[in-house]
Amino acid sequence: MEAKLTAVMPLEDNAELLRKEFLDSLIAARLLIPTGVPGVYGRGQVFESVLENLDRRITEAGSADLPEVIRFPPIINRADFEHSEYLNSFPQLAGTVFSFGGTPQDHMRLLDCVHEGKDWSEFQSMTDVVLTPAACYPLYPMAARRGPVPVEGSLFDVFSYCFRNEPSTDPARMQIFRMREFVRIGASDDVLAWRDSWLERGTRLLHALGLPADSDLANDPFFGRGGRMLAANQRQQKLKFELLVPICSVQEPTAVMSFNYHQDHFGTLFGISLADGSVAHTACVGFGMERIVLALFKTFGLDPAAWPQSTRKLLWLS
Amino acid sequence: MEAKLTAVMPLEDNAELLRKEFLDSLIAARLLIPTGVPGVYGRGQVFESVLENLDRRITEAGSADLPEVIRFPPIINRADFEHSEYLNSFPQLAGTVFSFGGTPQDHMRLLDCVHEGKDWSEFQSMTDVVLTPAACYPLYPMAARRGPVPVEGSLFDVFSYCFRNEPSTDPARMQIFRMREFVRIGASDDVLAWRDSWLERGTRLLHALGLPADSDLANDPFFGRGGRMLAANQRQQKLKFELLVPICSVQEPTAVMSFNYHQDHFGTLFGISLADGSVAHTACVGFGMERIVLALFKTFGLDPAAWPQSTRKLLWLS
Repeated sequence: MEAKLTAVMPLEDNAELLRKEFLDSLIAARLLIPTGVPGVYGRGQVFESVLENLDRRITEAGSADLPEVIRFPPIINRADFEHSEYLNSFPQLAGTVFSFGGTPQDHMRLLDCVHEGKDWSEFQSMTDVVLTPAACYPLYPMAARRGPVPVEGSLFDVFSYCFRNEPSTDPARMQIFRMREFVRIGASDDVLAWRDSWLERGTRLLHALGLPADSDLANDPFFGRGGRMLAANQRQQKLKFELLVPICSVQEPTAVMSFNYHQDHFGTLFGISLADGSVAHTACVGFGMERIVLALFKTFGLDPAAWPQSTRKLLWLS
Repeated sequence: MEAKLTAVMPLEDNAELLRKEFLDSLIAARLLIPTGVPGVYGRGQVFESVLENLDRRITEAGSADLPEVIRFPPIINRADFEHSEYLNSFPQLAGTVFSFGGTPQDHMRLLDCVHEGKDWSEFQSMTDVVLTPAACYPLYPMAARRGPVPVEGSLFDVFSYCFRNEPSTDPARMQIFRMREFVRIGASDDVLAWRDSWLERGTRLLHALGLPADSDLANDPFFGRGGRMLAANQRQQKLKFELLVPICSVQEPTAVMSFNYHQDHFGTLFGISLADGSVAHTACVGFGMERIVLALFKTFGLDPAAWPQSTRKLLWLS
């Protein structure tokens, strides 16, 4: 999945109020636990149980294709990240990791700043890692290092916490959230057909859960003046689709899954080639895990015991 | 758990070689997936399966006490972190999150630096979050916000990825790893008795898995000149115990669990009080999840199908 799931659109007049009401109700029910930072929450046991069971259903939906399962941590190699061109498009969302490498004297000065409530960033320097921006980002350099991909292509299953620097009171726009992805690497036609087949599979899964999901063409929120052209190009070439479900707004439903065809973007950038020497194309299908769980709570209420039998059965009894 | 699990001690002559051999074998078996940064690895499916099943056994070992389960993400509130005094003791291990808040012109200059391989940290500024240093850190400010703790105390179950800025080729010293913790908040005697009871329970669990675990008094690797005194004090008061298992060295076994009594440290810092008005004491029991999994692979070999029946049964068949 490339960058965040929904584009910015004009709000309903009461959208902000509806978001706050929903967030407050989630917190009151201890489904989300506030930490004092917007978009950063602990998850209560019931929230996690729904998410874990959703995760199992996604595994089932994708297991017939025998993906290679890899679980990357929530930080990645900064050099690979710099190479990914994420900073071209979404510099404002990226999170870099800094640390302290100074002397005991620097340490004393750092602590003085902290105690006096002053900026202490001068005592921090950039490390070799950044926060994972999307679950598939560590995969492309790894695939390149493994050497040529078989002509029939390859398929991966990844899952990790991802970070986006966009503090918000919208519970469906967290700064730190989990993304499950399937990633296909191979020849253009195969990759595109696979992406399109998942648009159907994803719709089926969300409908089976009882969610009123609709698909739509989409674009990423590219930064800066050139961004509008990039977004228009992405739409024109039908590179990105989303499945949307109303969470805090009917006018502005939230993207809970995305289906992205990258053409040869990552193949060329990282040097991923097929066994016949051609550049690999890639596509990914991403599940916004917290968003699907929030859509379930919004659609069916805060107590899973009262959810429709078909939804409960799919999540807990299969 | 406070800070990292083992203290620095003199090495066996061939320790570095043994670590490299073990790491290489884990990578060859695709149990760990290299990312190009020491201590940052993807986890293969078999590794994850062992870890997930270990996690279930820990849940069972702790479930009779009915802890409140909360899953915090791998970043926490920077203000709470500054307040925690972690920076006093372990400034070199902490990871802070920076991001970009500049203009389109700054963006162009940032990209120029990236393309020319120059330092681009001047275009990053500190955000309101830092990487989670230990799974229990977000819990203390949360407990304080909830108001007085019942006199019998409270118990939590937390689990998250944690970050330590200590690049190493030792597979058992990762920069990003998972820590499961139980945290007890209450009166001094109750908290201490609970901590000591877990030293027995933890030993039983690791022995049931077939791991040659031994307990020992321990101390944290406090930074700077004052650190030695803090460490001596911690030992003298028996505040920290560890369970150790040989992974890459018999002389220097690795701490895979720790048992920490914080006295009123966090209670006073964050203002956690009991219903009778006294300051709450706290203790935590931490499981180094990757370390226990690595200890299993080191002790029984890289193929779980060939592990002893009792270990397999405990992990997969209970």
